[in-house]
Amino acid sequence: MKITTKRAKFTNPLYLESGRILEPYEIVYETYGELSEERDNVVLICHALSGSHHAAGRYEGDRKPGWWDALIGEGKAIDTAKYFVICTNVIGSCFGSTGPMSKMYPEDRPYRFRFPVVTIKDMVKAQRILLSKLGIDRVHAVVGGSMGGMQALRFAVDFPGFVKHIVSLAATHATRPWVIAFNKVAQEAILRDPAFKGGEYDPKELSQSGLNGLAIGRMAGHISFLSHYSMDRKFGRNYVSNEGLYELFGRFEVERYLEYNGYNFSKWFDPLSYLYITKAINIFDLSRGFDSLQEALSRVRSRLYLIGFEKDILFLPEEMKEIKDAMDAAGKSDMAQYYEVKSDYGHDAFLVETDKFSNYLNDILEERL
Amino acid sequence: MKITTKRAKFTNPLYLESGRILEPYEIVYETYGELSEERDNVVLICHALSGSHHAAGRYEGDRKPGWWDALIGEGKAIDTAKYFVICTNVIGSCFGSTGPMSKMYPEDRPYRFRFPVVTIKDMVKAQRILLSKLGIDRVHAVVGGSMGGMQALRFAVDFPGFVKHIVSLAATHATRPWVIAFNKVAQEAILRDPAFKGGEYDPKELSQSGLNGLAIGRMAGHISFLSHYSMDRKFGRNYVSNEGLYELFGRFEVERYLEYNGYNFSKWFDPLSYLYITKAINIFDLSRGFDSLQEALSRVRSRLYLIGFEKDILFLPEEMKEIKDAMDAAGKSDMAQYYEVKSDYGHDAFLVETDKFSNYLNDILEERL
Repeated sequence: MKITTKRAKFTNPLYLESGRILEPYEIVYETYGELSEERDNVVLICHALSGSHHAAGRYEGDRKPGWWDALIGEGKAIDTAKYFVICTNVIGSCFGSTGPMSKMYPEDRPYRFRFPVVTIKDMVKAQRILLSKLGIDRVHAVVGGSMGGMQALRFAVDFPGFVKHIVSLAATHATRPWVIAFNKVAQEAILRDPAFKGGEYDPKELSQSGLNGLAIGRMAGHISFLSHYSMDRKFGRNYVSNEGLYELFGRFEVERYLEYNGYNFSKWFDPLSYLYITKAINIFDLSRGFDSLQEALSRVRSRLYLIGFEKDILFLPEEMKEIKDAMDAAGKSDMAQYYEVKSDYGHDAFLVETDKFSNYLNDILEERL
Repeated sequence: MKITTKRAKFTNPLYLESGRILEPYEIVYETYGELSEERDNVVLICHALSGSHHAAGRYEGDRKPGWWDALIGEGKAIDTAKYFVICTNVIGSCFGSTGPMSKMYPEDRPYRFRFPVVTIKDMVKAQRILLSKLGIDRVHAVVGGSMGGMQALRFAVDFPGFVKHIVSLAATHATRPWVIAFNKVAQEAILRDPAFKGGEYDPKELSQSGLNGLAIGRMAGHISFLSHYSMDRKFGRNYVSNEGLYELFGRFEVERYLEYNGYNFSKWFDPLSYLYITKAINIFDLSRGFDSLQEALSRVRSRLYLIGFEKDILFLPEEMKEIKDAMDAAGKSDMAQYYEVKSDYGHDAFLVETDKFSNYLNDILEERL
């Protein structure tokens, strides 16, 4: 699959939930497959905290494909022979869409901390505007996991009738203190790192060495993406080297895993974006502006598919189940399904164990349910 | 209860599990109650990662009593009218017993990173030597939670017959990768903090400002001490200030809790001790040197009381249950009991919800079980 990244520029202001605006702003995105003449075969994919618009395929020379390549492609669960698949980089992120390191027009300097707080609602609004610009006024499905699953839920509430099928995986309707606590560790580690320079770091320098604070915060994140069980299975008490037992810096395999993933991540992700996106996740609450979740969901005119993962300790499956219960209470039980994936892997299962829900996802898109 | 801290000095070498020695070394400790003429009323209390020998009572002018004051005192579960209660500061810690910031004899400079790795087995060995020095050759009970529970288990295996009743709470028989991962975040945060100066920091300076890296690591620790459930109940999605929602630095109550506890902790705990003690926890394995846990436990000649906490996510209750199962398999089912405390609080329940197991603990000491 040949991949090209596209860029859309908007000169009208984007009115944010906070009352502030972004003007101008840009959204980068990728598409896979062809838009049908009837423009009725669009599947929008929403990415998670550290994800990007590069959901599938490989750029020339790449070893690794996009983050959901196992699901998106010809003959796969989200079949690009049939669907026109779009994935955008969310605003606030650092892969090309407007974020804290974008230049703050008309200055030539980046926003940095002058960037406004963006919310999941704002991310979704920007995607809706992009789709309009592309001439798309109806979407067959929106699919996303984790923060992507929050976006999918927002589509259901904010744009009733715009999407036919909404698939939210490993997410929640309102972020709980447990998740906020993990994000807090990362935020403090970033803010307190002298190399962060109060947000005035040189991004080129950081992309060489990585910000230690971001690496450390990401390690905490990785704990929450796995679980007691998946760590037992993946690492056990294995040592990297048997001589390390009585050496202070002798390492267990789980330690090497965290180091590797943490310090690598800090070379390709922007610390200010990490602060802004974790803030967006923390304040996500589908019922904000309504009296209750049930009232928010009473607006829904899409079919909702809520997928929880058995051993997800970041967003518990019961949090997804609560959305189904609220749909039932809103008299919309026929429009919502809850599906629990059996998995020991933890939160990361939505990225790693795609084979456990690919058939279900395909059934949704093909309307066999 | 009037409290005095005592100090024992040892000039003989302490032979460590690693093959290295500590020479000389000191142990600080507190005692509550009176030693009986028969010297048969000793209860040894073992502290956790950040604990100290100050388990009960108040020093003059103190607002807060020792860490297990709810359980230790006249008429309490561990009745000081009846028992002679001893609690020592473990070697490697920073409250007076020999640790990395102690002077490395004959130099006038501290060990710092020249301090040897100490293990839970070493901590227990030092306590056994102290007890001998005090003329104590039999102990009625050893009681400890978390790392203290590991020490209690070591007494069972390393000194068969020395202790009559061993009570291990909220611990494990071998530390799992999940716990090692949380410790890793703290270790990296400490090591990467420029103010740590590669271990060459000035302790007086640090006690003023605290080491940010230690504070951040401790925040990660606090996540593991609580649970999804206890955080929901304790903090929910409450904001410190309602205006904070769209402010990047607007804070949830859970964030304030972590900040408060993290940054305070870093002012009174030594970062090198944190590295050494977390290392000791990481490499704890009751079966090391044996073919199996069952073989290790076949030596036990004490009664073992294994207390797990229902929603403990740091050391799962099932890890305590496994010890009971291994005792059963070793043909010692009559010598081991597993007791699960119903609690939503998480790991910290062993410190906070003492009323939920104080009767059971009293029954153990009074031999009513």
